[in-house]
Amino acid sequence: MPAEGGYPRTSSSPSGFAALDAMIRPSSVAIIGASDDPTRIGGRPIAYMQNQGFAGTILPVNPNRPVVQGLPAFASVAALNQVPDVAIVAVPGESAVQAVADLGAKGCPAAIVFTAGFAEVDEAGAAMQDRLVAAARQHGMRILGPNCLGLFNAAVGFYPMFSTSFEQGWPLPGNIGIASQSGAYGTHLFATSRARGLGTPVCVTTGNESDVSLGEVIGWMAQAPEVEVICAYAEGIRESARFIAALDLARRNRKPVVMMKVGRSELGGHAAKSHTASIAGDDAVTEAVLSEFGVVRATTTEQMLDIAYAASRRIYPAKNTLGVITVSGGAGVLISDAAEAAGIPMPPMPEEAQAHLKGLISFAAPRNPVDCTAQAVNQTETFEHFLEVTAEAGGYQSMLVFLTQTGGSTTMAPKLRPYLKQAREKFADRLWVLSVIASPDKVKGYEEDGYIVFEDPTRAVNAIQAMGRFGAAFATPAAGEFVVPRVTLPATTPTEAEGKRILAAAGVPAVPEKACASVEEAVAAAESFGFPVVAKILSPDILHKSEIGGVILDLASADAVREAHATLLSRAAERAPGARIEGVLIAKQIKGAVEMALGVARDPVFGPVAMVGLGGVFIEILKDVAFRRCPFSVTDAEVMIRSLKGFPLLDGARGRPKADVKALAGALAALSRFAAGAGDRLLSVDVNPLLVLPEGQGAFAADAVIEVEETHA
Amino acid sequence: MPAEGGYPRTSSSPSGFAALDAMIRPSSVAIIGASDDPTRIGGRPIAYMQNQGFAGTILPVNPNRPVVQGLPAFASVAALNQVPDVAIVAVPGESAVQAVADLGAKGCPAAIVFTAGFAEVDEAGAAMQDRLVAAARQHGMRILGPNCLGLFNAAVGFYPMFSTSFEQGWPLPGNIGIASQSGAYGTHLFATSRARGLGTPVCVTTGNESDVSLGEVIGWMAQAPEVEVICAYAEGIRESARFIAALDLARRNRKPVVMMKVGRSELGGHAAKSHTASIAGDDAVTEAVLSEFGVVRATTTEQMLDIAYAASRRIYPAKNTLGVITVSGGAGVLISDAAEAAGIPMPPMPEEAQAHLKGLISFAAPRNPVDCTAQAVNQTETFEHFLEVTAEAGGYQSMLVFLTQTGGSTTMAPKLRPYLKQAREKFADRLWVLSVIASPDKVKGYEEDGYIVFEDPTRAVNAIQAMGRFGAAFATPAAGEFVVPRVTLPATTPTEAEGKRILAAAGVPAVPEKACASVEEAVAAAESFGFPVVAKILSPDILHKSEIGGVILDLASADAVREAHATLLSRAAERAPGARIEGVLIAKQIKGAVEMALGVARDPVFGPVAMVGLGGVFIEILKDVAFRRCPFSVTDAEVMIRSLKGFPLLDGARGRPKADVKALAGALAALSRFAAGAGDRLLSVDVNPLLVLPEGQGAFAADAVIEVEETHA
Repeated sequence: MPAEGGYPRTSSSPSGFAALDAMIRPSSVAIIGASDDPTRIGGRPIAYMQNQGFAGTILPVNPNRPVVQGLPAFASVAALNQVPDVAIVAVPGESAVQAVADLGAKGCPAAIVFTAGFAEVDEAGAAMQDRLVAAARQHGMRILGPNCLGLFNAAVGFYPMFSTSFEQGWPLPGNIGIASQSGAYGTHLFATSRARGLGTPVCVTTGNESDVSLGEVIGWMAQAPEVEVICAYAEGIRESARFIAALDLARRNRKPVVMMKVGRSELGGHAAKSHTASIAGDDAVTEAVLSEFGVVRATTTEQMLDIAYAASRRIYPAKNTLGVITVSGGAGVLISDAAEAAGIPMPPMPEEAQAHLKGLISFAAPRNPVDCTAQAVNQTETFEHFLEVTAEAGGYQSMLVFLTQTGGSTTMAPKLRPYLKQAREKFADRLWVLSVIASPDKVKGYEEDGYIVFEDPTRAVNAIQAMGRFGAAFATPAAGEFVVPRVTLPATTPTEAEGKRILAAAGVPAVPEKACASVEEAVAAAESFGFPVVAKILSPDILHKSEIGGVILDLASADAVREAHATLLSRAAERAPGARIEGVLIAKQIKGAVEMALGVARDPVFGPVAMVGLGGVFIEILKDVAFRRCPFSVTDAEVMIRSLKGFPLLDGARGRPKADVKALAGALAALSRFAAGAGDRLLSVDVNPLLVLPEGQGAFAADAVIEVEETHA
Repeated sequence: MPAEGGYPRTSSSPSGFAALDAMIRPSSVAIIGASDDPTRIGGRPIAYMQNQGFAGTILPVNPNRPVVQGLPAFASVAALNQVPDVAIVAVPGESAVQAVADLGAKGCPAAIVFTAGFAEVDEAGAAMQDRLVAAARQHGMRILGPNCLGLFNAAVGFYPMFSTSFEQGWPLPGNIGIASQSGAYGTHLFATSRARGLGTPVCVTTGNESDVSLGEVIGWMAQAPEVEVICAYAEGIRESARFIAALDLARRNRKPVVMMKVGRSELGGHAAKSHTASIAGDDAVTEAVLSEFGVVRATTTEQMLDIAYAASRRIYPAKNTLGVITVSGGAGVLISDAAEAAGIPMPPMPEEAQAHLKGLISFAAPRNPVDCTAQAVNQTETFEHFLEVTAEAGGYQSMLVFLTQTGGSTTMAPKLRPYLKQAREKFADRLWVLSVIASPDKVKGYEEDGYIVFEDPTRAVNAIQAMGRFGAAFATPAAGEFVVPRVTLPATTPTEAEGKRILAAAGVPAVPEKACASVEEAVAAAESFGFPVVAKILSPDILHKSEIGGVILDLASADAVREAHATLLSRAAERAPGARIEGVLIAKQIKGAVEMALGVARDPVFGPVAMVGLGGVFIEILKDVAFRRCPFSVTDAEVMIRSLKGFPLLDGARGRPKADVKALAGALAALSRFAAGAGDRLLSVDVNPLLVLPEGQGAFAADAVIEVEETHA
């Protein structure tokens, strides 16, 4: 079939994803290493595409056969009678490198490389992979793989994939896209989806990611009309720019991303490394990046598909609340527990509406959960009222109706279904979910009526919660541009005092202190800091000030400062005769502060990442910290601070005054801007402790270490 | 059918469960309020029993009809021609009370009361329930319900239940028993089980539990041959003795109990109360009781049935380890993450075995997870080696084989199945679990070969983890009898000093201190406590000792004590002339202690419960505490202490010396024995702080409050 046919050529796509368009929606494909045997790696894609009616041209390349699986074959890449949009490379080792070079020379824009034995194996393989990439780059050609299982786009019958999983059936129509680093897990996800009746028209596996990364694939899906919901599987994120851009694009296009990122555990991290050449990275940083963009992380396949299934309805409540109608009080309790654990509010029904429903069935418990009891399904006309009054008066964004086997009963279900359909249509902006035990055809009927159907009510609640998280993320305006300061770092790691000065200039105030040469200067400094202050003798010859009585605390007035100044000078003269006295240091005295720790670390993938936690046991024993990519806003900083388990300590717990969270958030955001402005030479910052005073009194660094990469002048 | 037939009469059972035997395995049943209409509440049980071939006699009682559903009916209870083993009461309100009185008078040992409108409704209903119970008690008759959906025992075709759920199908053969307070949820569990192909021969719902409680039902199942695995659903535990005895019996009989106890959340607790007359109780206490007996708590129906399904194989590894064979590296990582989260060890394969497997497939990653790659299933003869070498050399108690769609492939599955079967038979003591995507008939085949089959690998891991928890509980010897001291509590709440003396006598030492009248006494006291000590002037006239220099710290030797004694007396004479001096108080000086809080509270159901936590933020902010029913052993106490999130602080974190955990555990166990011995008048004990010194140096109460109910003499 010629490329000029009805099938559009997309490699000149204006989307910025031309190479991926060529890979995923080509009008022609060459198979290097094409096999006549439809069960061989080089034969399967041809068999699959012929079976599924690929609308483009298939160009087998095989030096030994003029015809492959009934198609005219070409002896070499050079012999091809047209430039393919994409080529599948299924020849071993160095032949693959040569094939890529030949394809590049021919002008082919993209290749899908099945061949294994590259960076995933050893050093020699990594070197061969470098040659492969270099050969491609020379011609501006893009590579998927090597060591990848390939991809499929069922919408156009394109199957450059050698998985055996199609033997059990082809992808179903639908709107879920699968992007996976692991080929086996990607097809497992596809097969599980199919077993559940979920449609996955596109699946792309990225293998060694020598060029095209998971991020780029997610980005393509975020703009592709084939895909509305993105399921991604990662062992490690290898590059940040495209990944971040993809998540941002998906959010802007209101396409939810559910991601499984494995390798959280020590064991898992080990297994991930032996599996591919992944950088496992710090899981906490990845977690922070995902939550920044409203990506919902799944830890099981089931969870991922539950969420993808619910998302396929494309209703994402921005301010999610849950209304529950149940025929079982017990299930109502179970659902309430699950909702509380998931953090979905279940506000009670208005009193008046409760009274109305109790008027219909006297022993109903219509608070929310609204227990309409088995009576309501026996008197089906009351069921209609329960559904609509709860939706209307409760105003819930999400509605969960628990009917258990009643919803599958051959006698009851036909009576209940019209009421359910009518309520859903009347309140069409709500997310309607049904928990029933019913045959597949009954479930399908409810789905056709616009319901999401889960047998297990807890799984229903968790999927509803995820829809609310997507809704909240889609409603969050994209972060504006941050004013990132121009930071000039010193040539070598600065002293503590210098570090504090640098940070103070960047907006992270240090505990105020001033070296004062005269008593007037001391009084002025104290007055500028606010009382009480501490006075210390200032002398290069007195190391242990307190031993000579050289530190006086709790100075609460100008007079007290004057008196202390005199006392310190006379004590020094008396107890350290001959010491050079440079004056007196006046410092703000910090009392009753909450000790926090702030920091910046450089993630190998995501760059500078800021951290905040409460000092002491919270960090050291409980690892109670929050992370975020730099830079970020004061609002974002406050969200981080409020997410800490120990936050109540800042919020007036244990009879303390509320701490100055605004000042703390300001310091944290300032630190993030500083880190973003400082560039790659900033290795780390450690502000520990940052002393947070009661509301309105500020937050001050008592100690700070800035570590920089030394410049080689 | 006469009761003398082949069907055994069991109401004289020696099991201690005669009444429940009569209720669940009767040879005759009367139906009070029998209906000729098989869809009415009083008609359904008769229709179900006739349909399912109940082997006993059915005795309908109906004053208006001589024949009910084809059976001869009796006009009244008095008119019955035999004493039924059990009666179903399906008449409204006061008629139900009368029926119970009549049945009791007739000599019927047990009744299942469907009738609603009792304690679940209002005060008047509660009073009617009291009359119902009184009528039964008068004749030694036992009651299930009222307000219960009934029960079924499919093994004998006995269906005293008015659920409509049988319309979708009858219970399947199997060994899972369902005990549920909620009727609707109990039958939901049954229907969900059936939909999954799980056999639930017995289901008992307890309704208002005016007499027979959930605990008693679990106890019956723990000794009944029909049941091997117990699924229980509770909203609140109402009595402790039978519940505890039941869990103990189940453990001794190696029958796993999976329990869903809802009402954890504030919302859920509210819903539970509006649903039944349950005492929601303190969830943390219930949790502690369940874990004491190795009950695994499920939070979702799916989890409960996953565990019950896996348990139906009856392999409970006491020291669980997990070996994983996978065709997907990605899934291997996912499974490792899940195993780490669940706390199942996955020790690596021995080096030699790894080398052997790498000899078979060079790019296999056989560490554990053992990634045999798709190659092993293509060369099926290597697959046999991978299975058996991993089981043999790894010695894993549980084996999880991840095959995804390959296990369902029509071409591959028949080749793989014989190897799987052979490996399972060769290592028959192991728990073999398969994760595949396959058609129901293929799954059934694997199950027949002795495999537990889960599509989702994470659910497989969680079920395997639960089997290990059962195994560990079954291997734990039952607690011996504790020596509970005879405790005589004072008539009123004692002072702090008296409280500390009482507890010290019970084995919870207080900080040692002694009032000394002479310098020799002071030295002797110091030497008996160990140095350093603190000396304080002892005088009823000196309130603020430190103001006159009346407290001296850090006394590290006998000489220092002598000197301090003299100093204190001379300071008192000089600075507080005229004060009555009674001597000097010598106290052990506690430095570098970890502050703990110990306590006892009286749970309305389970009696005295002890609590331990780290002081300060750990308790107040993080609620990091452990509970256990009193009394318990020092070993149990140590398990509680080690379960705390803050435990690292006792274990040498942050550069501290390790704390004297043995002394702390000893004090906690002593407190538990004291509480058990003190009886109902002990309302609470609060030891806060208990100061725990470094290893070998002890743990001492610095403050203690004992609250008692005042005696009215």
